[in-house]
Amino acid sequence: MSFPTSLGTSTADEIHLLGQDLTADLMGKVGFGELAFWLVALRRPTPSETRVFEAVLVALADHGFTPTAIAARLTYLSAPDSLQGALAAGLLGGGSRFLGVTEDCGIYLHEALEGRDLPTDDAGWDALALEVVTATRAAGKYVPGLGHPVHKVQDPRTPVLIGIAEDEGLRGPHLRLFEAIGRVHEQVLGRKLPLNGAGVCGAALADLGLPVELLRGFALLARAAGLLGQLAEERRRPIGMDAYLTVDRNAVYVDPNE
Amino acid sequence: MSFPTSLGTSTADEIHLLGQDLTADLMGKVGFGELAFWLVALRRPTPSETRVFEAVLVALADHGFTPTAIAARLTYLSAPDSLQGALAAGLLGGGSRFLGVTEDCGIYLHEALEGRDLPTDDAGWDALALEVVTATRAAGKYVPGLGHPVHKVQDPRTPVLIGIAEDEGLRGPHLRLFEAIGRVHEQVLGRKLPLNGAGVCGAALADLGLPVELLRGFALLARAAGLLGQLAEERRRPIGMDAYLTVDRNAVYVDPNE
Amino acid sequence: MSFPTSLGTSTADEIHLLGQDLTADLMGKVGFGELAFWLVALRRPTPSETRVFEAVLVALADHGFTPTAIAARLTYLSAPDSLQGALAAGLLGGGSRFLGVTEDCGIYLHEALEGRDLPTDDAGWDALALEVVTATRAAGKYVPGLGHPVHKVQDPRTPVLIGIAEDEGLRGPHLRLFEAIGRVHEQVLGRKLPLNGAGVCGAALADLGLPVELLRGFALLARAAGLLGQLAEERRRPIGMDAYLTVDRNAVYVDPNE
Amino acid sequence: MSFPTSLGTSTADEIHLLGQDLTADLMGKVGFGELAFWLVALRRPTPSETRVFEAVLVALADHGFTPTAIAARLTYLSAPDSLQGALAAGLLGGGSRFLGVTEDCGIYLHEALEGRDLPTDDAGWDALALEVVTATRAAGKYVPGLGHPVHKVQDPRTPVLIGIAEDEGLRGPHLRLFEAIGRVHEQVLGRKLPLNGAGVCGAALADLGLPVELLRGFALLARAAGLLGQLAEERRRPIGMDAYLTVDRNAVYVDPNE
Repeated sequence: MSFPTSLGTSTADEIHLLGQDLTADLMGKVGFGELAFWLVALRRPTPSETRVFEAVLVALADHGFTPTAIAARLTYLSAPDSLQGALAAGLLGGGSRFLGVTEDCGIYLHEALEGRDLPTDDAGWDALALEVVTATRAAGKYVPGLGHPVHKVQDPRTPVLIGIAEDEGLRGPHLRLFEAIGRVHEQVLGRKLPLNGAGVCGAALADLGLPVELLRGFALLARAAGLLGQLAEERRRPIGMDAYLTVDRNAVYVDPNE
Repeated sequence: MSFPTSLGTSTADEIHLLGQDLTADLMGKVGFGELAFWLVALRRPTPSETRVFEAVLVALADHGFTPTAIAARLTYLSAPDSLQGALAAGLLGGGSRFLGVTEDCGIYLHEALEGRDLPTDDAGWDALALEVVTATRAAGKYVPGLGHPVHKVQDPRTPVLIGIAEDEGLRGPHLRLFEAIGRVHEQVLGRKLPLNGAGVCGAALADLGLPVELLRGFALLARAAGLLGQLAEERRRPIGMDAYLTVDRNAVYVDPNE
Repeated sequence: MSFPTSLGTSTADEIHLLGQDLTADLMGKVGFGELAFWLVALRRPTPSETRVFEAVLVALADHGFTPTAIAARLTYLSAPDSLQGALAAGLLGGGSRFLGVTEDCGIYLHEALEGRDLPTDDAGWDALALEVVTATRAAGKYVPGLGHPVHKVQDPRTPVLIGIAEDEGLRGPHLRLFEAIGRVHEQVLGRKLPLNGAGVCGAALADLGLPVELLRGFALLARAAGLLGQLAEERRRPIGMDAYLTVDRNAVYVDPNE
Repeated sequence: MSFPTSLGTSTADEIHLLGQDLTADLMGKVGFGELAFWLVALRRPTPSETRVFEAVLVALADHGFTPTAIAARLTYLSAPDSLQGALAAGLLGGGSRFLGVTEDCGIYLHEALEGRDLPTDDAGWDALALEVVTATRAAGKYVPGLGHPVHKVQDPRTPVLIGIAEDEGLRGPHLRLFEAIGRVHEQVLGRKLPLNGAGVCGAALADLGLPVELLRGFALLARAAGLLGQLAEERRRPIGMDAYLTVDRNAVYVDPNE
């Protein structure tokens, strides 16, 4: 029985990771974001790719008092002996609803592009977007990445991330199709919605060639840093007890048969 | 009722994080490692601090088929619909035994230095180290960060990380005391043990001024990237099923009263 | 702001749960299985319902060295300071693949029965089963609950659970349809498969009137008891370290580009 | 390499658990609480033991809007696709603070009794309790299980659980010592505190001969049922979104340097 891996291996004298010598080739020479990319893509990203990738992680790291941040803080309040438990509790909220847009949007665009000849101008992208949105609508489904509960007109992350990708020569087909969806969806859906920043992040990650089935993983990695910040703040200036008491003291018993 | 925070807040048009404008000040301008540091320390690290910090994260990201990596892969095998669950399962192993050295070592050094005048030369550090190790031994406790199950003579990460900290002018009191412990412990313990690389990481993080109670959190963040790599590999070239069957097919029933 | 609930509430002198006085009405008078049923269904089960319900929980509690049991043990090995973390890691494997059959089967049968006049004899059930299996096959999907990797001819839990339900007058439409599927599927699928015991559990729970969207939850509750047993055994006669070393010592580095 | 176990094993035709035939000996014949006890203690509990054990599980199952219940609901709100994740998030709060009293109290009493001749009358128990509380106080520690944030005079669970244990002939040394602590602690601590119901649960479980290091596990099992109830209610009459918005809409940015 043997267990193959291309990741970490070690001997008494050496530690290897991704076929590199950890201490000679990686430590002090490769950034943490670079390594995270490399671990999944099995190739070192270029400086341009690293800049786009880290911009995405920065964009997704923390959104304030989200359900996941509050869950992590309440777990820390209740079990301060286990930082890993509080962090894990926070990440467990990284599912379909609050953190899934990145992955859903990346997968949606990826599937829409699969097996297609890529358009060569905006008119071509618009035509493709129109076809895709129309088909989604006809299937009774939502286009992931359209709309945002707070940023109702424009998500400020959207133009900035597209600009960074453009600067770095990495504004690829997923971003272009998503932008085109932003231009044409009103014709089909009857109302204008902003391109969600978390969705744009998914498009940008897909343009970096990362596997779309794992995009949620990068959102989770980004969120791990944000949750650490939340837990550090919970130690410094706690809100968990107040959040808990606000709910508990306003509990009202309701007969189950009502 | 109000809930104070210095982290993420947003309005319809703007997103703030740490009092910065996320899109104007952070995205594309701040690396992911920098942001992770900033989220906990509430100040932007210098380039030197960032280099040491990221070297630590790189050192801790993945150690191959650890119990946590295997747990994450088995969870993914069993529940492939929930990447967050597999990641969380892996992080939950980040406790006292396999991932705690970083935190334990940082806290140990921090407490040893508290309220002390710092030595000014190696002889002074050695004297302090001797005192500290002697007291630990007298209390019947272990010195955290001494010894490694695989790297029995030298952990290759140790000199490299100390070298990076020295290059960046960040070889501070925690590292110096730990190095002195490396020189003198044999006098007290009767045998020579290597300085564990995960322990050196704790010393280096403490020298960066990060709160020692949260050092485990940085090991967890590093490990989140490593676990993503493990899960990406589990999709590409799975070993979870073989690991499971290796155990299950070799199960032997034992009478509970034996 | 008020937060309605029909579950636990308390004052300085009294604790209520489900509108009952916890100490006067429940403790010592209601079994744990009864309470678990009541908490979800909002009504106390009859003794017959309790017997079927507990038979299901007993059937699902432990299946030996499953991936979830091994993940829990490895997490405990790595972080013995956090029993809750090891238990949670084990439960996180309770997803679509290894623990989802109960839920999938219950939902499948529930949807097949929705809005139908129920057959009154076996011939009627067989006709309905034939229609349902044929439609599933035509849609290119699997019938959940057919087949088992180990019990290739008959799952020993299946006839026993059906017998208990029959004894208690609780062999309802979900079980009857599942039994009929067992009789007729060979006509459509071309081979005879056993009715999976975990699937029968889903049918029996659905016949008890429990919400099918939460059936996975009862499998998780049952498994929580099993995982406690696994962790108690890991303390008494550990296998986690051997399982880990078996994988780690047989790791083979593979070039990522191969 | 072989992996010993006394729990679940199976062949193509049979499933064994704890050396019993699952279908012939356990399903329909053993209650779920009985099985949970058996899985840890490796012996079937008597009917009296089962009654006390299940009374404890019932007492600990749900305490309304605790931090763990809210964390589970927020996780479900955020990731409704993963019931196991929401349940795990809730259990992760089962640590030292909100759910640890049961374990802490059981361990405290167990250690106090270790190697002692047991008193034979109340005066003897009082003397022992006085000695133990005095020593705890002298060591600058708290006596676990004294006091409750809501039940300031008497926790209603305490006399009821002691009564059930008495009825069943299971009021053993842990309960007797705890009761004596309830009578004498005022002499040492200078104020009268009630015996916490969760602490009494720990004493009762220890009197059943269950391993004190795993008592937290039974609190977690009980809570798993309670959390299922909370998640079922969150589906029926959700409060997660309101809880989240109550915190998020009252967020106030605070300069980190203040």
